[in-house]
Amino acid sequence: MSFLNSIEFLRAVLRKEKPTSIIIVSSKELIKKLAWAIKKINLPSATVVEIPDGEAAKEWVEIEKLLKKFISHNLDRNGIVIALGGGTVGDVVGFASSIYLRGVKYIQIPTTLLAQIDSAHGGKTAINFLGYKNQIGSFYPPVATIVDSRFIKSLSKEQIIDGLGEIIKAGFIKDPTILTLLKKETADRLPESRKLKSIIEKAIRVKQYYVNKDFKDTGLRQILNFGHTLGHTIELKYNISHGRAVIMGMLQELKIAEKSKLTPVSVRNNLETLLKSLGIKIDYKMKAEYKNILHDKKLRGNQIFLPVISYEGKARIIKLDVHKLKKFL
Amino acid sequence: MSFLNSIEFLRAVLRKEKPTSIIIVSSKELIKKLAWAIKKINLPSATVVEIPDGEAAKEWVEIEKLLKKFISHNLDRNGIVIALGGGTVGDVVGFASSIYLRGVKYIQIPTTLLAQIDSAHGGKTAINFLGYKNQIGSFYPPVATIVDSRFIKSLSKEQIIDGLGEIIKAGFIKDPTILTLLKKETADRLPESRKLKSIIEKAIRVKQYYVNKDFKDTGLRQILNFGHTLGHTIELKYNISHGRAVIMGMLQELKIAEKSKLTPVSVRNNLETLLKSLGIKIDYKMKAEYKNILHDKKLRGNQIFLPVISYEGKARIIKLDVHKLKKFL
Repeated sequence: MSFLNSIEFLRAVLRKEKPTSIIIVSSKELIKKLAWAIKKINLPSATVVEIPDGEAAKEWVEIEKLLKKFISHNLDRNGIVIALGGGTVGDVVGFASSIYLRGVKYIQIPTTLLAQIDSAHGGKTAINFLGYKNQIGSFYPPVATIVDSRFIKSLSKEQIIDGLGEIIKAGFIKDPTILTLLKKETADRLPESRKLKSIIEKAIRVKQYYVNKDFKDTGLRQILNFGHTLGHTIELKYNISHGRAVIMGMLQELKIAEKSKLTPVSVRNNLETLLKSLGIKIDYKMKAEYKNILHDKKLRGNQIFLPVISYEGKARIIKLDVHKLKKFL
Repeated sequence: MSFLNSIEFLRAVLRKEKPTSIIIVSSKELIKKLAWAIKKINLPSATVVEIPDGEAAKEWVEIEKLLKKFISHNLDRNGIVIALGGGTVGDVVGFASSIYLRGVKYIQIPTTLLAQIDSAHGGKTAINFLGYKNQIGSFYPPVATIVDSRFIKSLSKEQIIDGLGEIIKAGFIKDPTILTLLKKETADRLPESRKLKSIIEKAIRVKQYYVNKDFKDTGLRQILNFGHTLGHTIELKYNISHGRAVIMGMLQELKIAEKSKLTPVSVRNNLETLLKSLGIKIDYKMKAEYKNILHDKKLRGNQIFLPVISYEGKARIIKLDVHKLKKFL
């Protein structure tokens, strides 16, 4: 998608919605870094509101501050909020928009690869609470998600890997042509690749497939959780990026599935080969933490639902006693 | 509805939902006052959690405390929360349930007349914020609302009037047979009246009619707002009950509609006659506050949508410039 098209799309959405006011929310650092984009978006009537950088924004007290800003800028039910930034900005803006006046409309303009292919789609909003990740939130889809691959060019290699985790996951659970496209790429060169647009589009389509079938995440959508049950605990314990943690989670979940003869060993071998060719190094010393799984939102009593891969592009959900999982770890 | 049936209904809901845990939430005072009901409900596995009495519970910081209690009692996505109390308890529990783990199921057991016929139906949840009433909230219906007229017997006359405000409104906007039933009643004797059950059922049916047609409150449901635009400002300014404020709001909104020849003067005369026969005294010195209307959630830019009564049982919505409203006040 070219930036020109993106701006045209944004203007079309705003023409349709006719908002009484517009608030652009971004983080302190991003407002500086994305000044060019805010200038290009060129909405003279919009107010820019700042939230903290990174996970610090996903706290109860920060939502309170953001809601106070909505009030001080007289945001009414027919106003619109724009989330400009990565997954954190999207999560925070989505959640605040979902509870302000019982819901005002918002638009996602994701600026990281991870947000563009995953978190900005599907309407899950969330903040952390008492140290638990995404413990509080809502299902509240944006009126539009505007994806522009130009943002990708300014990302670091680690931010590309962050997105690749979910892109690779999309390939394994549903669309193996993503894996084929990735075979000749590296994390370093991906931002300049001619295949980037196609890879982004395919990954979004996988996400939307499950979201449309199960918006409230009570069944099929849990397949998107592949690599996440163990990955979340690794992300928390070692403070690494979400995508990198999902990669670790996929490897370790595949190993468990192998032990139970649910997934052939070739799947994990193929994943490891792909990671190597992409130039993504794995620290195998990082292990999932059992006690944090006990606070997983997906837990139903003692039962946990784990996505397992039958072969590349085919996944299903199995029900596992959480105590059994302990033995595997 | 007899209490026996109510308990049977509650048990049927719980048998269907099979919750992993049950949390009953009520206010400090109500837990004492309703000990008999908690005993009759008889759920040995349930935990009782306390929130502050009255509007003090509808604050951001109190929701934080309640969510922390949900976590400390290991409430998971398959747990259930029961709101036992009036509208405030229902609002707080509904809101907290809607954002905990992106939504856990909850049951309303309303114990006031107002909550039984109005707030416990329709899925609107809310808290106050920066002094603005119901500024933060969600649309999140309970899995069941259990109405038991036995709770009504322990209410004060003022609490009966609180409910009567919305019951009378239901009569004027949609079902005039409610007004006929009320004609031979008084606020004092209503709790013992044989007609109480029928009055409650009819009022609930009016509410549900509009909720089913317009769950997200973007059009027709606004007819339920009759008496509320001015009433809310009176409630805030004079610190009187919601229902009493709605009665004042209806009288003053009818007067404005008369001036614009939208409602015949007979409607207001009939309302005043009914109030007199019910034994509800009106303090005509209480006037609506213009500046608070500017923060009404129903405002769209400068436009406000006002329900007007054509005749008893027939209402429609008109669009009014908010500055014009000022002239009338």
